[in-house]
Amino acid sequence: MGTNRRSFIRNTTIFTLGGMVLPQISKSNMKRGSLPKQGLKLSFEPYSLQLKHVFTLATSSRSTTPVMLVKIEYDGFTGYGEASMPPYLGESHKTATKFLSNLDLSQFTDPFRMDEILGYVDSTAPKNAAAKASIDIALHDLTGKIMNQPWHKIWGYSAEETPNTSFTIGIAQKKEVIEKVKEAAGFKILKVKLGRDNDKEMIETIRSVTDVPLCVDINQGWKDKKQALDMVFWLKDKGVVFVEQPMPKTMIDETAWLTQNAPLPIIADEALQRLTDVQSTVGVYSGINVKLMKCTGLREAHKMINLAHANNMKVMIGCMTETSCAVSAAAQLSPKTDWADLDGNLLISNDPYTGMKVIDGKITLNNLPGIGIKKI
Amino acid sequence: MGTNRRSFIRNTTIFTLGGMVLPQISKSNMKRGSLPKQGLKLSFEPYSLQLKHVFTLATSSRSTTPVMLVKIEYDGFTGYGEASMPPYLGESHKTATKFLSNLDLSQFTDPFRMDEILGYVDSTAPKNAAAKASIDIALHDLTGKIMNQPWHKIWGYSAEETPNTSFTIGIAQKKEVIEKVKEAAGFKILKVKLGRDNDKEMIETIRSVTDVPLCVDINQGWKDKKQALDMVFWLKDKGVVFVEQPMPKTMIDETAWLTQNAPLPIIADEALQRLTDVQSTVGVYSGINVKLMKCTGLREAHKMINLAHANNMKVMIGCMTETSCAVSAAAQLSPKTDWADLDGNLLISNDPYTGMKVIDGKITLNNLPGIGIKKI
Repeated sequence: MGTNRRSFIRNTTIFTLGGMVLPQISKSNMKRGSLPKQGLKLSFEPYSLQLKHVFTLATSSRSTTPVMLVKIEYDGFTGYGEASMPPYLGESHKTATKFLSNLDLSQFTDPFRMDEILGYVDSTAPKNAAAKASIDIALHDLTGKIMNQPWHKIWGYSAEETPNTSFTIGIAQKKEVIEKVKEAAGFKILKVKLGRDNDKEMIETIRSVTDVPLCVDINQGWKDKKQALDMVFWLKDKGVVFVEQPMPKTMIDETAWLTQNAPLPIIADEALQRLTDVQSTVGVYSGINVKLMKCTGLREAHKMINLAHANNMKVMIGCMTETSCAVSAAAQLSPKTDWADLDGNLLISNDPYTGMKVIDGKITLNNLPGIGIKKI
Repeated sequence: MGTNRRSFIRNTTIFTLGGMVLPQISKSNMKRGSLPKQGLKLSFEPYSLQLKHVFTLATSSRSTTPVMLVKIEYDGFTGYGEASMPPYLGESHKTATKFLSNLDLSQFTDPFRMDEILGYVDSTAPKNAAAKASIDIALHDLTGKIMNQPWHKIWGYSAEETPNTSFTIGIAQKKEVIEKVKEAAGFKILKVKLGRDNDKEMIETIRSVTDVPLCVDINQGWKDKKQALDMVFWLKDKGVVFVEQPMPKTMIDETAWLTQNAPLPIIADEALQRLTDVQSTVGVYSGINVKLMKCTGLREAHKMINLAHANNMKVMIGCMTETSCAVSAAAQLSPKTDWADLDGNLLISNDPYTGMKVIDGKITLNNLPGIGIKKI
């Protein structure tokens, strides 16, 4: 893993602060919690997730996803974080390396001060939401480990309140769809990517194999509100339970009309990214899809969930293709969501971590401190 | 302290659950964290706070405040909580005793499950907000102690971000007002109770002794929006920084008009109690006063603060006359507020706890775990 240069300098110079020269203490000889406290030590490593299946959206397809694996070390504890960067969101190994290299976390000697640290991180550059999330996740993992509790417990949630997670069936040929649905036999809800000209065919194909509840993600693929409403009624008859981002995010009035008339909840995805976007979805959508990689991490995601609930909106928590690191972090919040789409780690063949498990279709949290993961 | 009868029964019967008879283990011989885990043990004690000065509001005056001192014990840890019940809010030793006696917290074997526990507590009876807050505060103290961190740190806030606290100057005769203001010399902001026919005289009297910034609490005392606006302009000239609850909470349109035209922030107090009331203040007031005893405790207060901020509203955190227990709990949230009125413990002569201190007018948090208090 690369080490932040400024962090290295800080760590070697802190011993002469205030003119005092203290004896250099080897970290391995230091008891946890003993002084002097050093700053946070950030390191990161570019990594490529290998997808088990080529992944097809309404507008693109790919077989790998670039991520950054991040570590923050402090006082003998290590917190893990991750930035997942599907290319269509504009981040890459290059942008994340630049963003993370520019951070000086060694100035912070208390990882609990997340408001201050994440405020600083957010202020260093616009966008870079996934890279920012990697720091947020690592800080949560770190502080949770210091407190020796998983975050779902620290937040006061009950582990068994987690929802089932959906498993995503991408756009594909009929034969491949049937294969995928059969593979997904353990899941209690399937997420179907629609928004092309074969939507009904996709659903009919899936319904020829399974009766499991479905949700559908249109990825802004529908352009006409009346056709959209007809489709939502048709989908309800087929056992679909909600519809995600049916029309382009710019079609606000049309979406509000659809939400008002539709027999299923209409969930915002592309229409929002961060906390400040939530208010604009009130009265337009029935709920929001919260994703750590779009909203800069757990701290902001948690506020988005509470704000949506205060507006009587539904909440789902989603993910990108991610390792068990980011997925397990999101899973900590899932007891407070109506639906979860946390299958990102199941889509890859080279996960460096173990964490939350999907057992009998349900998100199953362990009792490990922090975000609940271990390195394999 | 009284002990909950059902709690006692549960604690003695838990050892025979599932038909297995386990040997009775003396608590004092058990190592912290060792099994079997027992349920939460609640106890409480009625207590009367002695006020240093007779306290005069627009509508009443009194020299004592009834409170309940609450303890929740679990696994060798003790969490302290408090219900403060000024009579005009409708709770009393009698109502709180009834409410708390009716709770069965022994059914919960994990104090971290606050959503579940506080959901249960809230559901057992309507109202009783202060009694509910006493449980919320004790659970926060308990879990913070288990994690060995103060809640302002667990929430990610920075201790030095606390505001100055105001000190309240009640309605009184001129001579007494001057004495009180002189006593309050260490405070950087004073809160003046107005809403009678001598408002200007009160302010002039205080201004004859000090130039310190003032805030004013009208307690719904003004009835005419144009006179109210004139007064707000006059008060601004006198160095007042905000106005609390100027008109009756039912005068919604008039208050919205005042807020829109006033040169100072207009803060809701009597107009709201709980999280579900916050939305009704948006567009009517510039901010809200959050009080643990009205909103059932820290968990809901925290959500109210975040919801107000999401609506670009100001937040102040207030209190009743309270011991250092409830005041120190509220102080944990104060780094996220614009103003604080946490002088309740300074108004009493028989505080059984030490906790947060007011140093040079500023709320000063210690690093004790939980809500940051010790029994004297």
